[in-house]
Amino acid sequence: MKLIDLIHMNRISQRLSELGEIGKTADQGVYRLALTKEDWHAQELVAQWMREAGMMVKRDHFGNLIGRREGTNPSLPVIMLGSHIDSVPNGGKYDGTTGVIGAIEVVQAIHDAGLEISYPIEVVAFCDEEGPRFSGGFFGSKGMIGKITAADLQQKDEKGITRYEAIQDFGIDPEGMAASVRQRGDIKLYLEMHIEQGPSLQSIDRPVGIVTGIAGLTWLAVKVMGEAGHAGTVPMHLRRDPLVGAAEIIQGIERICGANPSHPTVGTVGRIKANPGGNNVIPASVEFSVDIRDIDLERRNQMVSNVKENMYEVAKKRNLEIEIEELIGIPPISCSNQVIEAMEKANTKLQLGAPRMVSGAGHDAMVMGEITDFGMIFVRCKDGISHNPKEWANPVDIRKGVQLLLETVLYFGMPTNT
Amino acid sequence: MKLIDLIHMNRISQRLSELGEIGKTADQGVYRLALTKEDWHAQELVAQWMREAGMMVKRDHFGNLIGRREGTNPSLPVIMLGSHIDSVPNGGKYDGTTGVIGAIEVVQAIHDAGLEISYPIEVVAFCDEEGPRFSGGFFGSKGMIGKITAADLQQKDEKGITRYEAIQDFGIDPEGMAASVRQRGDIKLYLEMHIEQGPSLQSIDRPVGIVTGIAGLTWLAVKVMGEAGHAGTVPMHLRRDPLVGAAEIIQGIERICGANPSHPTVGTVGRIKANPGGNNVIPASVEFSVDIRDIDLERRNQMVSNVKENMYEVAKKRNLEIEIEELIGIPPISCSNQVIEAMEKANTKLQLGAPRMVSGAGHDAMVMGEITDFGMIFVRCKDGISHNPKEWANPVDIRKGVQLLLETVLYFGMPTNT
Repeated sequence: MKLIDLIHMNRISQRLSELGEIGKTADQGVYRLALTKEDWHAQELVAQWMREAGMMVKRDHFGNLIGRREGTNPSLPVIMLGSHIDSVPNGGKYDGTTGVIGAIEVVQAIHDAGLEISYPIEVVAFCDEEGPRFSGGFFGSKGMIGKITAADLQQKDEKGITRYEAIQDFGIDPEGMAASVRQRGDIKLYLEMHIEQGPSLQSIDRPVGIVTGIAGLTWLAVKVMGEAGHAGTVPMHLRRDPLVGAAEIIQGIERICGANPSHPTVGTVGRIKANPGGNNVIPASVEFSVDIRDIDLERRNQMVSNVKENMYEVAKKRNLEIEIEELIGIPPISCSNQVIEAMEKANTKLQLGAPRMVSGAGHDAMVMGEITDFGMIFVRCKDGISHNPKEWANPVDIRKGVQLLLETVLYFGMPTNT
Repeated sequence: MKLIDLIHMNRISQRLSELGEIGKTADQGVYRLALTKEDWHAQELVAQWMREAGMMVKRDHFGNLIGRREGTNPSLPVIMLGSHIDSVPNGGKYDGTTGVIGAIEVVQAIHDAGLEISYPIEVVAFCDEEGPRFSGGFFGSKGMIGKITAADLQQKDEKGITRYEAIQDFGIDPEGMAASVRQRGDIKLYLEMHIEQGPSLQSIDRPVGIVTGIAGLTWLAVKVMGEAGHAGTVPMHLRRDPLVGAAEIIQGIERICGANPSHPTVGTVGRIKANPGGNNVIPASVEFSVDIRDIDLERRNQMVSNVKENMYEVAKKRNLEIEIEELIGIPPISCSNQVIEAMEKANTKLQLGAPRMVSGAGHDAMVMGEITDFGMIFVRCKDGISHNPKEWANPVDIRKGVQLLLETVLYFGMPTNT
């Protein structure tokens, strides 16, 4: 029996389904915020699966659940696989969980085959990747790389419970956090499998993709100001209507960010408000958000600059005032070339036809990438739908992702075997 | 001394200022909702001015304050002048009040000159033209033409007081309303002077304008539906973004309604909402309002049809779904030709250079027009600003409006004199 055949699609499916029962909502979604009773039960279930795969299990001081399989050489750094099992409010069954269950399946296959690997392997279910409860995600991974501040711990949920208290309620002493921080050199590489949360793989009919990097993100808050007036009394040619200006700007964002379909640039306006907002009032001002992402920092910055320039032009042409505030500017981060190359080799071997692609969303991998080499695998999900009860990924595709993950682990863990 | 010189600019200014003290807000605006203590005090003050001008004063069953100067021929119908003295929340000092104080000035001049006119003249300060308190305006004029229903009387303000109770608190028995309804034939003509509430007169540097009609109004509620997604994970070319579709539609409304600058068509989007409305979420749907007005019913309907057609085209092109609901469809109404002609004669005589123009906003005149001939005069207001503490009209302009109003009254009231 080949090693790859030890990956059991049915077990993966069964586990996704079992985990999806914890915090299940009326419309088959999942409501499993971090550090809640549901999160605890989910971690306990995942811990059991880790143990079945031959791992020792512990919870670190950030609430990360960690399963560890020792390697044959105790001096080597760890090969870490991970993702998360917390969800957004009424999210889906596949976001995060697919990566954690897939990683356990990788270790299970190695365990079942009785393979000796020189590196230790850890599977991590990171705590609070999503972040809605305490208004801030990537808590567990940020903690692990030593980026959690006292202020982060004082963030409160809507009931007034601080994150500090929630961690204590999980049976963890937050004062010991320093002991759970990893340093550069502790981790050989970090690998994460995740559903794509977008429609690209479906659109080109591929089951999995090799992520080359995580897009950088710029958030703008824009306010366009014109002159309010009665909708009936101001002739069209005498208007300074900020909403028509905003409309022209929004179309410009689509045109600029979508100009070259071979570039992964995306630009989105998700929120818009006209003030005062009466049916019969020409707005005095319009406020909207802009989200621009690209994997290439220079191009992202160029796109942001082009979008801003267009905003100023439209405002000038229409005699409107405009204020543009840059709320967030996170640089893109590239996956490690050696990981991408390893995945490409496995891709060829497994004949998966996996394309290279960019992650538009952030993941724990982005955080871990600050202290270690890293790579990501995306699994096709139906219609690109995520953070939604309708989220779905085909077990056949997930199995292919796990195969790719396993091959990548073996490439680094026992290079002579692959 | 010429009759026209009996119109005193200073008295008008003084009275506007005095009335503006009642319900004055911190930023020099006016907060004088209908049937409140402030409205009562304002009516009492206006009643005093009516008496000074030789009129008998009463309050009808709809809370309209009516000053009456008898004519020499008791069998003739009334020449009615009017407007309103209630305001929107934190509105201006000139909206409505200019017309009421101007109408009193007309009667004052006739009184001071000792002119005998065969027709009775009434000056009406209509009750609750604005309508914010009980969610519905034109109450007094609608009452006068017999269009108030029991349901209108049961409308509540935010404190739970019904309009019925508020009328009772004004010392009026609402059960007697039938006695205050006028029939076709009771009124020879209705004339209203009002600030323009738009920038047209200012833009062509004219003090006053002759209104030829009140625009018809169509309100649409539009919902554009696309496909929600993560702002980072859905490539531009795979998006069905309803907000970019809405933006194209909004620009289309401007283009279609503004295509011919010589037409008074106006189209406005005053309210817009993207759902769910997150910075990093491609909206699932966008809802917005559309307000389209024109003085020509056929052209208005054609514009609405063109705007709708463009909406469907944009939706089809972008693979979006769209729902268009028609909330309101009020036909335009024309001022009486004989009134317009009379005003044109006075305009020539007084060398006012008053242009013909359309009212984009509704007025009590629109309601009174259902049972009588009617006409309106607009007075230039600064920057077209209205419903705002900054509302301002030049007393010099107002005086010219009053002169035009007086000449029009005399044209019909004592044709041999003009």
